[in-house]
Amino acid sequence: MAQMLPFDRLIIIDRSGDTAVYLQIANSIIHHIRMGVLRRGLQLPGTRELAALLGLNRNTIKAALEELQAQGWIEAVPRKGIFVAHDLPEVRVGRSFGGRGGAAGGFGVEGSEPAMAAGRANFEMWYTDDDPITDRKRHAGNIFIDDGFPDIRLAPMDLFLREIRSLSGLPSFRQYMQYGSPAGTDFLLSTLTTYLNDTRGLHIGKQHLMITRGVQMGTYLAASLLLKPGSHVIVGEPGYAYANKTFEKLGAVVNRVPVDEQGIDVSAVEALCKRKKIALLYVMPHHHSPTTVRLSPQRRIQLLELANRYRVAIIEDDYDYDFHYDSSPVLPMASLDHYGNVIYVGTLSKTLVPAVRIGFMAGPENFIQLAARRRSIIDFQGDAFMELALAGLLRNGAVSRHINKSVRIYHQRRDHFCGLLSDVLRDRVEFVRPEGGMAVWTRWEGVDLRALSEAAAGKGLDISDGTFYNPPGRNYFGLRLGFASLDMSEQDKAVGVLRDCLKKMR
Amino acid sequence: MAQMLPFDRLIIIDRSGDTAVYLQIANSIIHHIRMGVLRRGLQLPGTRELAALLGLNRNTIKAALEELQAQGWIEAVPRKGIFVAHDLPEVRVGRSFGGRGGAAGGFGVEGSEPAMAAGRANFEMWYTDDDPITDRKRHAGNIFIDDGFPDIRLAPMDLFLREIRSLSGLPSFRQYMQYGSPAGTDFLLSTLTTYLNDTRGLHIGKQHLMITRGVQMGTYLAASLLLKPGSHVIVGEPGYAYANKTFEKLGAVVNRVPVDEQGIDVSAVEALCKRKKIALLYVMPHHHSPTTVRLSPQRRIQLLELANRYRVAIIEDDYDYDFHYDSSPVLPMASLDHYGNVIYVGTLSKTLVPAVRIGFMAGPENFIQLAARRRSIIDFQGDAFMELALAGLLRNGAVSRHINKSVRIYHQRRDHFCGLLSDVLRDRVEFVRPEGGMAVWTRWEGVDLRALSEAAAGKGLDISDGTFYNPPGRNYFGLRLGFASLDMSEQDKAVGVLRDCLKKMR
Repeated sequence: MAQMLPFDRLIIIDRSGDTAVYLQIANSIIHHIRMGVLRRGLQLPGTRELAALLGLNRNTIKAALEELQAQGWIEAVPRKGIFVAHDLPEVRVGRSFGGRGGAAGGFGVEGSEPAMAAGRANFEMWYTDDDPITDRKRHAGNIFIDDGFPDIRLAPMDLFLREIRSLSGLPSFRQYMQYGSPAGTDFLLSTLTTYLNDTRGLHIGKQHLMITRGVQMGTYLAASLLLKPGSHVIVGEPGYAYANKTFEKLGAVVNRVPVDEQGIDVSAVEALCKRKKIALLYVMPHHHSPTTVRLSPQRRIQLLELANRYRVAIIEDDYDYDFHYDSSPVLPMASLDHYGNVIYVGTLSKTLVPAVRIGFMAGPENFIQLAARRRSIIDFQGDAFMELALAGLLRNGAVSRHINKSVRIYHQRRDHFCGLLSDVLRDRVEFVRPEGGMAVWTRWEGVDLRALSEAAAGKGLDISDGTFYNPPGRNYFGLRLGFASLDMSEQDKAVGVLRDCLKKMR
Repeated sequence: MAQMLPFDRLIIIDRSGDTAVYLQIANSIIHHIRMGVLRRGLQLPGTRELAALLGLNRNTIKAALEELQAQGWIEAVPRKGIFVAHDLPEVRVGRSFGGRGGAAGGFGVEGSEPAMAAGRANFEMWYTDDDPITDRKRHAGNIFIDDGFPDIRLAPMDLFLREIRSLSGLPSFRQYMQYGSPAGTDFLLSTLTTYLNDTRGLHIGKQHLMITRGVQMGTYLAASLLLKPGSHVIVGEPGYAYANKTFEKLGAVVNRVPVDEQGIDVSAVEALCKRKKIALLYVMPHHHSPTTVRLSPQRRIQLLELANRYRVAIIEDDYDYDFHYDSSPVLPMASLDHYGNVIYVGTLSKTLVPAVRIGFMAGPENFIQLAARRRSIIDFQGDAFMELALAGLLRNGAVSRHINKSVRIYHQRRDHFCGLLSDVLRDRVEFVRPEGGMAVWTRWEGVDLRALSEAAAGKGLDISDGTFYNPPGRNYFGLRLGFASLDMSEQDKAVGVLRDCLKKMR
């Protein structure tokens, strides 16, 4: 990092003033040390360089530095140069972002007065947020039961990176380095249009599709077009905390209806539609989070009828479409005759690895146009390089091959994990084997999940303490346990730890 | 794309029903053709495969297909297979996303009834947006005068891609494929903390910083924490349309104060602060967009005093810090004693190439924590691969070297472009040579900019028609002209086209 502070700007000389120039220089530097701009141990430019920068005689600079050294603000280290002193006479910084220094070390002169800012904002924020982003603390070396993430070890990341490499060699790649469309790169849009039509029975054109950075961005964009403060949304309960938070942050009223083993309760949805104007219904047909149930084909058709009758928009969050073990997936509502009521959001981040942030949203053309514009105020555009590489893997079949392979492996892992839960933890946990997806919804009636999580961490297993799934006032004793990212021996170990912890907790 | 529609789900057999099974199969397929799920020309699985999928005798399948062929729904192509007929007896699809087909081609059965949805949503959207995202239409082969973008031809993208390649070979790279923090990867956070402290005189720790996907995301996140519907914001006028739109979409009242050659008018800001509670002041110190003026050091200090007195948060959008030709940059307000009032947003996308979507936001620790959480509802996290590669280039000095090189070249380009404007277009255009940045603010008193833009496009030059800079009711006759991305011969050509067009327009 060869760049230097702009000393010629820091040091302001008033030639018409009464103060000698060398003292003006010294005072400027003292000011900046006190403000924390010039930090302890920082090397200053040499006298020759400073003289040239400031357009002054070198002797003036020398006089200034002597003054500073005499006052104890700087120190000369032989054969190395001149540095801001480590042992400063007096400092009063610490009123900007809080001068307590940070993990990056090296800067941060400790404030000598109680910093009124000390890392605190001096303005009002209306936004508050006490919900946990996650309640699974990671400890290095521990096995980690996640919320239902893919196994990154299976993903064809070598092919993905090779694709970026070979694309970047093409002359046509240059165009993708400039600003592009907030709807995504054209190449991925056409590829994905055909892919979704072929695999999910959609019948869309490119104009009905935009690329997002995942299901979350799709949900957010759709909701921000559909909801204004006070609008009513219907969600399933128990539900997905991130989606509910999104609707709440947009000022909407979140109406919760029960979810049973067929999915969201249609008659409860209808009762609400009769009572008040519902702007949005949010469903996760494969598989409702956290309970993992699949929305039945019958209910899909009933919901479409309701949406049409009451003019309710549906966000169909089909994040788990690719992963089924006992049967094929049910085709999305977006593939049926939905009269323009369905916004279909999905992701490829669970298909490859979470770090490849690519999802999509399909919907009516005018809706997609507005959503793309709305996107440009939160995030100008996606990652062209990633989008192109993914399009390449979709076209050459690598994505399909990877899905087939993952489904085979996750199938075995689901069976193994559910077998362990039944055999090893039988008397403590209730669950229904999910027909697809990457997680099992488990209920631990009477178990102190916080204590369990804490005990497990000490024995090599990181697992949710339940806060994320059981918010205040709604205790399901529930945990959603991801099985897909753990191989069978890791599963054995994880469930063994749980068994040992539960024994001690009796 | 080897994946297939789930025929075993599409075709539902009711063995207890009165209808013969082969007819049930045929009727299912007809239903899905009519719904558009099975589209014209789609190949169906072979009889053997279908029989296996459905668990039926192959003769039953054959009978079903004969029925379908007789009715004209499918056609057999010798030695190829069985396909949904191109010439369908009757279809009524087109009520989902609009069945008019799309640019990607191949699907899209044309609707035979006027599709009630025809690409239109059947629900209410409160969000509308008539502002242009850009008013510069691109024509292949034309020279493009942008809003002030970097020249992608100069960027060390080979080094960037090599960095991704070599990082991806490391075993430690695997961890970055999983979900990460919405605040950014730790490696880039520490690198950037030191870099910002060293180059911009900030004195922050890692806890005061988060990675964004550019200035726009930083502005959006900060504003969404600071503003609620009805909050008051102050911006400079003329101003930056994307920022103003962001504040408006959050429901805030946007108060415009004049910008002169020293930056935003401080006394106008103070007058507003006295009259009403101001939540946020938005400034672009280097360089105010669109006019390119630099906020003077005196005004920076005055604004900090005002912010402290009236408890106003300041978003300091310093997108152009790296590019100065006549002097060094002025240190950010965030480097001064700002009492925790300044949120500092910046970007590296203009430093490398726009497609590398990486920016940052520095602020008080509690603010940054909330902002990272707020980010997770619009976009879980950034791109770990890109962030790591950029951190590598920052650490090994490649970014600094690239900045130095770009500044040298852009300096020449600014001088050349301003020279051309003076010499060739002297009597038509007014401008002040900007001290830095990538664009010149030009005024075309009495010129029909729409006509100019249209005429230029026909002669090989794409240029704004002014809509973006001169919204209804505020005609500055202004255009912001990017000079950095055009080499001198391209500039010669561009200005020549403008001269020729203007001659004809007299």
